[in-house]
Amino acid sequence: MEPKTIKKIGVLTSGGDSPGMNAAIRAVVRAGFYYDIEMYGVYRGYEGMISNDIKKLESKHITHVLERGGTFLKSARSAEFRTPEGRQIAYNNLKSHGIDALVVIGGDGSLTGAHLFYKEFGIPAIGLPGTIDNDLSGTDSTIGFDTACNTAIEAIDKIRDTATSHDRLFFVEVMGRDAGFIAINAGIGSAAAAILIPEKKMPIEHLVDKLRIRTKAKKASNIVIVAEGGKSGGATEIAALVSKHLPYYDIKVTILGHLQRGGSPSSYDRLLASKLGVAAIEGLLQGKYDVMAGLINNKVVYTPIKKAIVDDKSVDEDDFRVAKILST
Amino acid sequence: MEPKTIKKIGVLTSGGDSPGMNAAIRAVVRAGFYYDIEMYGVYRGYEGMISNDIKKLESKHITHVLERGGTFLKSARSAEFRTPEGRQIAYNNLKSHGIDALVVIGGDGSLTGAHLFYKEFGIPAIGLPGTIDNDLSGTDSTIGFDTACNTAIEAIDKIRDTATSHDRLFFVEVMGRDAGFIAINAGIGSAAAAILIPEKKMPIEHLVDKLRIRTKAKKASNIVIVAEGGKSGGATEIAALVSKHLPYYDIKVTILGHLQRGGSPSSYDRLLASKLGVAAIEGLLQGKYDVMAGLINNKVVYTPIKKAIVDDKSVDEDDFRVAKILST
Amino acid sequence: MEPKTIKKIGVLTSGGDSPGMNAAIRAVVRAGFYYDIEMYGVYRGYEGMISNDIKKLESKHITHVLERGGTFLKSARSAEFRTPEGRQIAYNNLKSHGIDALVVIGGDGSLTGAHLFYKEFGIPAIGLPGTIDNDLSGTDSTIGFDTACNTAIEAIDKIRDTATSHDRLFFVEVMGRDAGFIAINAGIGSAAAAILIPEKKMPIEHLVDKLRIRTKAKKASNIVIVAEGGKSGGATEIAALVSKHLPYYDIKVTILGHLQRGGSPSSYDRLLASKLGVAAIEGLLQGKYDVMAGLINNKVVYTPIKKAIVDDKSVDEDDFRVAKILST
Amino acid sequence: MEPKTIKKIGVLTSGGDSPGMNAAIRAVVRAGFYYDIEMYGVYRGYEGMISNDIKKLESKHITHVLERGGTFLKSARSAEFRTPEGRQIAYNNLKSHGIDALVVIGGDGSLTGAHLFYKEFGIPAIGLPGTIDNDLSGTDSTIGFDTACNTAIEAIDKIRDTATSHDRLFFVEVMGRDAGFIAINAGIGSAAAAILIPEKKMPIEHLVDKLRIRTKAKKASNIVIVAEGGKSGGATEIAALVSKHLPYYDIKVTILGHLQRGGSPSSYDRLLASKLGVAAIEGLLQGKYDVMAGLINNKVVYTPIKKAIVDDKSVDEDDFRVAKILST
Repeated sequence: MEPKTIKKIGVLTSGGDSPGMNAAIRAVVRAGFYYDIEMYGVYRGYEGMISNDIKKLESKHITHVLERGGTFLKSARSAEFRTPEGRQIAYNNLKSHGIDALVVIGGDGSLTGAHLFYKEFGIPAIGLPGTIDNDLSGTDSTIGFDTACNTAIEAIDKIRDTATSHDRLFFVEVMGRDAGFIAINAGIGSAAAAILIPEKKMPIEHLVDKLRIRTKAKKASNIVIVAEGGKSGGATEIAALVSKHLPYYDIKVTILGHLQRGGSPSSYDRLLASKLGVAAIEGLLQGKYDVMAGLINNKVVYTPIKKAIVDDKSVDEDDFRVAKILST
Repeated sequence: MEPKTIKKIGVLTSGGDSPGMNAAIRAVVRAGFYYDIEMYGVYRGYEGMISNDIKKLESKHITHVLERGGTFLKSARSAEFRTPEGRQIAYNNLKSHGIDALVVIGGDGSLTGAHLFYKEFGIPAIGLPGTIDNDLSGTDSTIGFDTACNTAIEAIDKIRDTATSHDRLFFVEVMGRDAGFIAINAGIGSAAAAILIPEKKMPIEHLVDKLRIRTKAKKASNIVIVAEGGKSGGATEIAALVSKHLPYYDIKVTILGHLQRGGSPSSYDRLLASKLGVAAIEGLLQGKYDVMAGLINNKVVYTPIKKAIVDDKSVDEDDFRVAKILST
Repeated sequence: MEPKTIKKIGVLTSGGDSPGMNAAIRAVVRAGFYYDIEMYGVYRGYEGMISNDIKKLESKHITHVLERGGTFLKSARSAEFRTPEGRQIAYNNLKSHGIDALVVIGGDGSLTGAHLFYKEFGIPAIGLPGTIDNDLSGTDSTIGFDTACNTAIEAIDKIRDTATSHDRLFFVEVMGRDAGFIAINAGIGSAAAAILIPEKKMPIEHLVDKLRIRTKAKKASNIVIVAEGGKSGGATEIAALVSKHLPYYDIKVTILGHLQRGGSPSSYDRLLASKLGVAAIEGLLQGKYDVMAGLINNKVVYTPIKKAIVDDKSVDEDDFRVAKILST
Repeated sequence: MEPKTIKKIGVLTSGGDSPGMNAAIRAVVRAGFYYDIEMYGVYRGYEGMISNDIKKLESKHITHVLERGGTFLKSARSAEFRTPEGRQIAYNNLKSHGIDALVVIGGDGSLTGAHLFYKEFGIPAIGLPGTIDNDLSGTDSTIGFDTACNTAIEAIDKIRDTATSHDRLFFVEVMGRDAGFIAINAGIGSAAAAILIPEKKMPIEHLVDKLRIRTKAKKASNIVIVAEGGKSGGATEIAALVSKHLPYYDIKVTILGHLQRGGSPSSYDRLLASKLGVAAIEGLLQGKYDVMAGLINNKVVYTPIKKAIVDDKSVDEDDFRVAKILST
């Protein structure tokens, strides 16, 4: 497509926040400045686009944000934006600032918004994968996923200390919505006895057998990782089921929760966010609209948003096999 | 009291584990070696004393344990030790190894065991305060408390990232049993909107009012710290009550849980554990029995175990006042 | 002294920065607001006082600073302030803003400035101990010291991994100027083979003997902590001397350097800074001038600045004895 | 090649240690057990092979090692192994234990040893890339690289606190031998003003100009990352050169040093080490000898050792370009 002339770009974060969003915003803004573009921050995601909470960004706004968790542009979910009327208001607000193009950082819902907006109003829009869940195609890793995995294993390392000291069985629930990426990484990384992910059904009897065998083998600690979106429920439900079969076990549950969303981004997430931030601006300038910029095999790749969202990205079968070998 | 001749000392950890227990064991054992004493590890607390799970310790057992969370001697709660028959078996086992004296590291229940054992069998016993709850008198801080506070604020810092990004209200539950020490430190340290501790009753209306006022003042984030042993319930219960009064708030709950018990001990806990470990051995050699060694104003103090347990140590009123001033 | 009426207070940080300075500023400002005082930030320490870099502070300035290292008011050393002419200019600037009183956060040089300023112009001034060196009397711990110790042991824990893997001898230099507080805490906390501090002369032959004995005893790792202000030089010099006596050792040197000054403050430093920040404002309101607010045995104590600076605070002899026992 | 029958496999770590080596050993050993192979640990690398420091490994040896930095098998550099006589002795020792095959974890020197050993004695040998330097082809990342980058940025984050507080210019030297991988990642991840890597010559005048421009633009902090193997010297040398041109700058140098080699491995390094550990055993069983197992685009790939070592892997040009855009 013949690139349109772009003078002013708006950037926003939407949906659940993830570590590295600030680094991505910074890279988007700094790359914009590099290409002599005026940059605008849309606050609170699409909600701010509708309420016209939009400000011109300067260098000072992005100083010392790279290393901070969360998003200084804030994030929200907007019901109104899902209506054509809401989107019309949003469009009018963008136009009132003279904003030519958009960079949207978020998960599948957020990118869907960008896609719709492009379709309906022809606004050049590009998405960046910002979610800890890693459930977007078109990129090896989403911004925030690596940090969330590190946060999870650091927490589980602490839990293992007490699990081992007391010969306890811990069920630890990690995030990931209906994807098991954090669970599989955290599970392999913490020598878990078993990993329960939404993508795989594991009959409770198998789990119980495995735990029985490990106990006989006097494995030093028993930690079971449960992805939040598991088919048989979360850690609390699984633990209750298991405890019926293993009444003499000292069983505890920890739900790691929202601390997985925060924290200073890892080196990898900073690099990923920085590269994709530059790629977003350069993509827009090259006429790449309605796409998500991702990193595949360390190269920038632009994937149509609809494809990035719809495609099924699932936990690597081989990772699951490795987890099994290492936990026996 | 005229000190008995002591040639062999047993050391054990009991009750809930805490970071720094390993550092304390190491210091006890190394100080024992320094004074030419044979050192024995009693595994799994009093349970191991009854099941005779007792091993002679050498230098290699305490190599690289100082920096690790948990306790390599493991810990457990023993019902049998609470009976005179159980204690008689335990005593016989100690005698079969020729063990003259005991160092017990743990919380109030563990120290009570040491006290009873001394009373009934005259075994020189000294206690060290090993608990994250900080609920023992006779010491400014218990071993593990400082690390638990650091773990709590690091987790809350991460939660704040996401709380701020979404303008959410978070209720974070911290440990401490029926003491509010972790809550008050973590609350002041994380700029909490409010801190609910067992020692103070706060009517739910006051809390709701405070949150309303802060919202009007557009405070950047609202985190409420709830001690697990609170009179009105834990974070889940309080959040439910508040949400009735503030239905439009986006409220989330995180229960930090057992990760607070683990982790590499802080510099302070390593120093405290090291000093008290030496003090335990030197106390026994000086005839100080049935006491707990603690650190008050950075000086070693020996307090009768009964006094250390029974005395009420409560959250500093001034800390509470400071928390209030800083959260308005 | 009859307290003067105080309506406007200036706060500044001066000298080397330390973790927790931001938490202290926040507490000072928030306590000021609580007592209906206008608060002013003096930027870049006394330098900003002379160049009139002074701004009224609002709530937004202290949002999300508590958990950050460094000082958002910035710090500097000012040669001009050491001259009477410089101080006169500074005074005139304060007056031009109507500032009635000062809170100075820093080390001995910074507090001396506050003392002089009070003496010469009668401006109510109170100091807070902000330095990682812990070399001020009138407080058990200075703001930043606990965090610096944690930073040091975390770094040394990492160094120990590689030291142990290679059976190497590491000399690690820590900060502390002419005080050995960080060295002694980090040394005990990292199971160091030896600790060299400015307060104690250790002949190089003793050190060499100790290392030889440990090698024979096959101690798992040999880490020697050297305080930067040591009488026989820093880690590089000591390592060179030792290597002459132990030519077959694989010796490495690491100078931890300025990373010890930064980082998010520990729970203890946040609490300390928060309590002292409130104490500074309340002290000024009660007519306590020319003093430093410190925490002794967890109680706020006001010590004349001259005494806090001049008094010799030195490493606890018993800490040194404990270090010796534990390293044999 | 027709796979030989393999019953006993030896595993060793050699050269500079890296975080994740323990996780790799664990995975190798556990995968060996899974395939009913006896596993032997060769201690202190090739040195232990020559001195016959070889022990049969059991489950207990690999308990709780996954999360620890360093290598419990220890590492060393062996001059004797470089001689044919030394290798003959080593071979005889392996045979005396009945060891059929070898897994060598280390950098290029270590893998060269495995290659030679295979060539000369026909012992099936497979290598795993264990080095923080990331300077091996045949894998996207080497075991330990990701952790070293995280360690570097966490240290630089702390340094930035104090750099910003004092408006200082810091030169921070990171590891990487003659490769700039850590430098480029840490530089982008810490918003460095400039990154000096061995692969690129940057005239000192360009650097000085860049720093001057940034100072005029009042960039909040100036951190320059210098790779240790830089053509114009390390951080100390560069800082000295720059200070001649910018005499009024307050310039400091920090050499991060060996702490970059230690620490608990990141989630990514744990996963990488776990997958490659399994791949090493499965490769040997499938007759893949004289190769290094690596991960390319998340798939296991076996590359001839000679190719993995000789091939030039160099910093991505696009990473360098991104760094430039983001630092202007």
